[in-house]
Order: sequence, then C-alpha cells, then structure tokens
Amino acid sequence: MLVNAIEPDNHAAVNPLERLSGILSADMKKVDELIMAHMQSEIKLIPKLAGYLISSGGKRIRPLLTLAATRLFDDTTERPFGLAASVEFIHTATLLHDDVVDGSEERRGKKAANLVFGNQASVLVGDFLFSRAFQLMTADGSLEILRILSEASATISEGEVKQLLSISNMDTTMDDYITVISAKTAALFAAACEIGPVIADQNKATQEALRLYGLHLGLSFQIMDDVLDYSANQEKLGKAIGDDFREGKMTAPVLFALENANDDEREFWNRVISSPQSQKDEDLPRAIEILNARGAHIAAKTLAEEHAQLAKDALTSIEKSAINDSALIELLCGIADYTVNREF
Amino acid sequence: MLVNAIEPDNHAAVNPLERLSGILSADMKKVDELIMAHMQSEIKLIPKLAGYLISSGGKRIRPLLTLAATRLFDDTTERPFGLAASVEFIHTATLLHDDVVDGSEERRGKKAANLVFGNQASVLVGDFLFSRAFQLMTADGSLEILRILSEASATISEGEVKQLLSISNMDTTMDDYITVISAKTAALFAAACEIGPVIADQNKATQEALRLYGLHLGLSFQIMDDVLDYSANQEKLGKAIGDDFREGKMTAPVLFALENANDDEREFWNRVISSPQSQKDEDLPRAIEILNARGAHIAAKTLAEEHAQLAKDALTSIEKSAINDSALIELLCGIADYTVNREF
Repeated sequence: MLVNAIEPDNHAAVNPLERLSGILSADMKKVDELIMAHMQSEIKLIPKLAGYLISSGGKRIRPLLTLAATRLFDDTTERPFGLAASVEFIHTATLLHDDVVDGSEERRGKKAANLVFGNQASVLVGDFLFSRAFQLMTADGSLEILRILSEASATISEGEVKQLLSISNMDTTMDDYITVISAKTAALFAAACEIGPVIADQNKATQEALRLYGLHLGLSFQIMDDVLDYSANQEKLGKAIGDDFREGKMTAPVLFALENANDDEREFWNRVISSPQSQKDEDLPRAIEILNARGAHIAAKTLAEEHAQLAKDALTSIEKSAINDSALIELLCGIADYTVNREF
Repeated sequence: MLVNAIEPDNHAAVNPLERLSGILSADMKKVDELIMAHMQSEIKLIPKLAGYLISSGGKRIRPLLTLAATRLFDDTTERPFGLAASVEFIHTATLLHDDVVDGSEERRGKKAANLVFGNQASVLVGDFLFSRAFQLMTADGSLEILRILSEASATISEGEVKQLLSISNMDTTMDDYITVISAKTAALFAAACEIGPVIADQNKATQEALRLYGLHLGLSFQIMDDVLDYSANQEKLGKAIGDDFREGKMTAPVLFALENANDDEREFWNRVISSPQSQKDEDLPRAIEILNARGAHIAAKTLAEEHAQLAKDALTSIEKSAINDSALIELLCGIADYTVNREF
C-alpha cells in the first residue's frame, strides 16, 4: 500500500516538505510570481508591508498543498498557480490580523509586522490581501472553489473569535480546543487540498478525500505547533517559546497537564492561565517542567500522530486509477509524518 | 428630462432616502432577514457584535442603492436581496476595522463596537462578515458581480491605507484627498449601484452609467460627511463633531481653508494637523471659525454639489426604453441632491 511505503523514521533527517518544494519548484516559482504581482498597489506601503511578511521565509505549505493536490491528478493547466497564490494571501491576511489580535512581537524570526508598521496598517493590508485573494479566485472562475475558500475564510474567523474567548478561560475543554484549531488552522489546510481535485476535475469522493487529508494534516500541524511553543529550539522556531503561555492560551499541552494535575499544579495553572499578567520569570520553566513530568508533551504528540494517521488514511481512499503521480501521494504521507516529527 | 423633474429645494424637507426606503420596504425587509440570517454563528459573540453595529440604525444606503439600481429595470428576481446584504456586510466589516484603526469612540450615537467588545473581536468579526459577503456572492453565482465587489473591496483598503498615510501630513493635496475618498467611500457606492444592471441583465453602457452615478454620489456623500464633521448638529450626527480634526485628517474643509490661509492660520493648521496631540480645547472652535471665515464649508459644499450633478448626469445617459420604473430614477436624483443638503 502506498501509504505504508514511507517509513517515518527514514525521513526524519530529510524534510519531505522541502522535497515537495523541490519537485514543485518550477510551479512554485509561478505561484511566487503571482503573489508578488498581485500584492502590488500604487500605495507603496501595501507591497512593503505584505512583502515584509511574505518574503520572510514562511514554509509556503498551503500553496504547496494546493499544487500537490492538483498535480496528483492528470492536470497540467496554469489554474493552480493563481489559486495557490490566493490561498497564501488568505493565510497571510490571517497572520497579519492574528499578530494584531495577539499583540505578537516576533514572527518567522523577525519583528512582527504590527510592531514595524503599526496595528492600523496591518489590519488594512490584511483586508487588502484578503480582497486580492477573492479577485484571484474570481479570475479563475470556479464557483465551487469560491464556495470552498469563502467558507474556509468565514470558519477561520469563527475559530479566531472562539480562541479569543477561550484565552485565560480555565473552563476550556479539549473539545473546545479541537473546535478552535479545526477552524483557525485546519479549515484552510483542508480547503487548500480540496481545491486540487476540483481544479483537476475529479469526483466528489476524491475531493472529500483530499479535504479530509488537509483537515487532519492541519490538526496535526497545529497540535505540534502548540507543543513546540513549549519545547522548541527558539532559534529554529523563529520566535520566542512560551508565547501561548504568556497569552494564557489553553492549548493541548496545558489541557493534557490539567487532566493529571495535583492540587498544587492545578493552582499553578489556574493562576498563570487565568491571570497571565501575574506570571513571573520562573513560571515558564515551571510550566515546562510540569508538562514533562505529566507526560503532556507525549500525550499531545500522540494526538498529533493520530491525526497524521487519519490524514494518510484519507489518501488511501482515492481511486488508484485517478492518480497520475504516486510519488506525490508518498510525499503527502511523508508530510503528515513530518508535521509530528519536525522541530520547528 | 427626468433629472430636471426634481427641484432640489422642493425636497429639502422630505428626505428622499426615506422615501426610497419606503417604496422598497418589502424588498429591504428581505435584505434585513438575509443580513440577520447570515451573520449568525455558533460563536455567539459574532452575531452579538455584528448585530450591535448592524442594528444601530445605519441608513442602509448601500443596499438600498443596489435594490433601486436593479428595480429600475425589468427585474423581479430575488437576486438583489442576497447581493444587497453582501454589500452591507462589506460596509459593516470596513466600519468595524475603521473604528479600530481610527480608535473611534462613537458610531451612530452609540459607543463604538471596538470600545464595547474590544479591538480584537472587532477585527475578527469584520473578517467574518467580509467572508460572509463573499459566500453570499458565490451563492448568487455571478462572476461579474464577484469581480466588481472584490475589486471594490481591494480599492477600499487601498484608500484606507492612503488615508492613514495622509493623517497629520500637511503635504496632502486635494488630489490625494479625492483619491482617498474615491477609494474608501465612493468605490463601494459605485459597486453597489453597478451590480444592479448586472443583475437585471442590462448592457455595459447602462452598467457604466450606474457605476458613475454611485461613484459621484459616494464622493458627494463623503465630502459632505467631512463638512458635517465640523458643522453638524452633534445629536443628529450621532457622534461628536471634530473627530477628523482630533485625528489630524486632511479633509476637504481643511484643504480649502489652507488654499486661502494667511500666515497665522497656516501656522495654526500646521500645529493642529501635524500634532493633533498638541490640540487644546479652544482649537476646534477656532478651526470652525477659520473654516467659516475662509468660506471653506461653502467651497467644499460646492464641490459636493458638482459631484451630485455628475451623479445625476450619469443617469441621463441610460436608454429610456430600458427603464421600467422612472420614479426610481427621480428618487436617485433626489438622493444625489439630498447628500448635499442633509444635516447629518
């Protein structure tokens, strides 16, 4: 079976996202050209601010997924380029708005755009990129793709609002957390993948398989992001660890730690999450110590692995006869494993 | 000629916007139902925040324009309802983001949403409504309308960014100002009107006529908004006067006052616009006094009248045989005059 052809451990050293990026580099160049062309404006601050974030070495995982999910099938059109650019614009717009909402200080190893250009410009340039995304989709002309991506966009903002409400809220459950990350992160991964088979004119079952792949990949990706926020090598991560902690975010590691917390620990979490402003310098190291002692990292990583497996399972349901490039299927499986094993 | 059938002065006492609202009240009820239905979300804060602004007695001028620009012609479909709701969602999203960007304190006679619910929620709910707008357009299925409204949305954010850059900037010219208000305000008026003939399957010339009507109406509307910010009855306006002044905005009245300013006055404007934080209590009354002395209100109002006339002229170019309801043409002309003569 294709999905078992990849042994995760064999690829721990080779990053399958970079391999995919290499295979699709000619296509990604076209996507990057469209991104650059469509973020232009006579108002020079717009490309300056957008370019600050877009050129800052993001992984471009979402547009890569769109390309891969199209090239899996017998499609050689130019359509995925503009749509992949559109997906990246939606992502960039949400990052700009997120950083304003979170009061972020760093992003991708650089000072966050809101600190360099101000919250006001970040909000407005986010709106601009969001509009540009819809202009690109409209130029493509598929109403099904417009439906998928406009729904994903609405879902993302619902997830962000729900996350805002769960900040410093100790009543947040694991279900709430999964709802938040399904919406704020996995919905765009799902949409980025789902539009591939739509472009390639595949049937609904195939469309659904790619949607599920993206959804579970996104969940795995976000859970690991939340684990890495407490455990990553700060330099590799490109931002300070402990951001979620300082904001009082209820993420998977904290939720798992709370499941097995003793009274002391519960009191600790209650204080640092409910009143992040009360946090002292020694609180983050203590939090990390508790997470390790309670196996919270391992539990969260196991949850991420389950979603990575579900992502891979979804790909097995695609009719073999429809697949034009089985190497891409293997790489997509590799990426699912990589989300769990990555260090940043 | 139809456009001359209305004598502006005859209608100074009767508000033609309310008359249009009355004639189209059954249609507007359908639009309002769609607005209420589509702002719903499982995340209750979203309809709460959106509803706070949407139900706060806005004039609904943009969706009314879409309805009127469709019903002018022989169209009895339900299509304009969803699209008018979409236009209102785009407008509401930009208001939410504007109020964050401007740090507004009041809107429509109420505390601004950002002060009640916070900047973070206002940004995210704006994003949600913006996405919902595109979902509604996608459900309608006209790519031409998606093109018009996605372009208008991009233009709005460009205008907002340019406005941000012109704040406290004494080098701002009248051309810069017209560019800003064409984008931030008139583009959505133009789009709201242009989609009417698209829905009603009219030719490109008619589409262009309605676009021009909306564009000049929007310009007239915004110029008068900027005049009223220095001269309105505060209670009728629904917010404090002098907002633009306190923000250091370079609007039409200030630009006209600067054209004829003596050295003292130039020094005054330079201080209060370049450093709004240096403003003292007596500065707003002094600004108003100078505006009156220099005829700046009158000059700005004359400019607004010119655009109102251009709006009316645009309507005369529509082929008479295409018009199904000439009473609506007369009302649209009346609204153009009303934008100039309104007191709030």
